[in-house]
Amino acid sequence: MTEKTRLDRQIDFLVEADKLKNTIRATELCDGSRYENSAEHSWHLTLYALVLADQGPEVEINLVIKMLILHDLVEIDAGDNPIFGQLDHAAIEAAEQAAADRIFGLLPDDQRDHLRAIWEEFEAASTPSAQFAKSLDRFQPPMQNLASGGGSWTDYDVTEAQIHDRVGSKIAIGAPGLWDYAKARIAAFFAAHKST
Amino acid sequence: MTEKTRLDRQIDFLVEADKLKNTIRATELCDGSRYENSAEHSWHLTLYALVLADQGPEVEINLVIKMLILHDLVEIDAGDNPIFGQLDHAAIEAAEQAAADRIFGLLPDDQRDHLRAIWEEFEAASTPSAQFAKSLDRFQPPMQNLASGGGSWTDYDVTEAQIHDRVGSKIAIGAPGLWDYAKARIAAFFAAHKST
Ligand SMILES: [Ca+2]
Repeated sequence: MTEKTRLDRQIDFLVEADKLKNTIRATELCDGSRYENSAEHSWHLTLYALVLADQGPEVEINLVIKMLILHDLVEIDAGDNPIFGQLDHAAIEAAEQAAADRIFGLLPDDQRDHLRAIWEEFEAASTPSAQFAKSLDRFQPPMQNLASGGGSWTDYDVTEAQIHDRVGSKIAIGAPGLWDYAKARIAAFFAAHKST
Repeated sequence: MTEKTRLDRQIDFLVEADKLKNTIRATELCDGSRYENSAEHSWHLTLYALVLADQGPEVEINLVIKMLILHDLVEIDAGDNPIFGQLDHAAIEAAEQAAADRIFGLLPDDQRDHLRAIWEEFEAASTPSAQFAKSLDRFQPPMQNLASGGGSWTDYDVTEAQIHDRVGSKIAIGAPGLWDYAKARIAAFFAAHKST
C-alpha cells in the first residue's frame, strides 16, 4: 500500500461527502412530493445567499456561501435535528464535534484546518457573515412550507407562536428584513388555515 | 393584485429553483443506491471547487463557485443530457437559452442580468474560471463511477476510449492535473473489469 497523495485525500473527502445526499431533513420540497436531503438543501441555501445578499449588507458573501456549502457535512454522522423536535443540545454538540473531527480529518492537514475553521465560525454565529448564513438556514424551510401548503408545520403540528419563538427570533438576528417578510406571509397562512 | 416587490420576485425565483431537486442525472450516488439529482450534484461541485482550488491556480475561485451554483438551473426546463447519449447540440442550446430567459427572468432585472452573465460565461467556456468549472463538472461523474464500481459506464456500456474522447479531453482543458489522476484510476478500473 503506497502513501496517499494530497489528491487521494481530497478525493476521499469528496467521495465521503456524497453521503450527505442520503441525510433526510424534516422539510418537504415545494411541491410536497418528498422530503429534501441535506445536500440539495445546502445547494439551495447557496442560491439563497447569492440572490438575497442585499439583505445582509455587512456580510462577506463569498464567505457566507462557503459556510453554507460546509454547514451540514457533520450530519453525515450526526444526522439532522428538526427544529420542532425535542433536542438534547449537549449531545448534539458532542456528536457534531466528533463528526467534524472525522470528516474534515479526511482532508490534507492545511485544508482540514481551513475548512474546519469556516464551519466553526458558522457554528459560533458570532460574526455578521455567520449570523446571516444561519438566518438563511432558518428562512428557507418556511418558504418551502408556504409553497407546499404546510409541510413540516402540519407534520409537527406547529403553531404560529412556536414559529416566532424558534425560527423568527433566529432569522431576525442576521436578516431582519427577511423575518419581516416571512412573518407577514406566515400570519396570512395561519389566518387562512385557522381550525376553530 | 398588488405589484410584486423585489423580495417577492427573489422568492419566486428561489421557489422555482427548488424544481432542480427533481431533475435526475445519469450518474449514480457513490453507494450505487440511486441516481443523483442536479441540485445535490451542484452542491457537490461547489465542494469540489472549494477543495480542489489548488488545481486551478489561474482561476477566481469565488466566481467558479457561483458558476457551479447556477450552472444546471436551465435543466429545470431543458432536462439533463447524459454525455454518453446521442445529442442534438443545436436543439439543446436553443432549449437552454429559452429556459434561461424564463428562469432568470423571474428575478429583479439587475439580478437577472448579473446571474445570467455568470451562467453565459460558464457556457462559453472561454475564461480560465469557466474552463475550470466545466472541468469539475466532467471530473465528478468518473469519481462517482469509480466509487460505485461502474455506475453510468456500465449502464451506457462505455469504453475506456470513449471516456478519453468525451470526458478526458474536456477535463484536461481546465484541470490537466485532475485528468492525469482520473486517467490512471480509470485505466486501473478497466484493467480489473476487462471482459475477455
Ligand atoms: Ca441545517
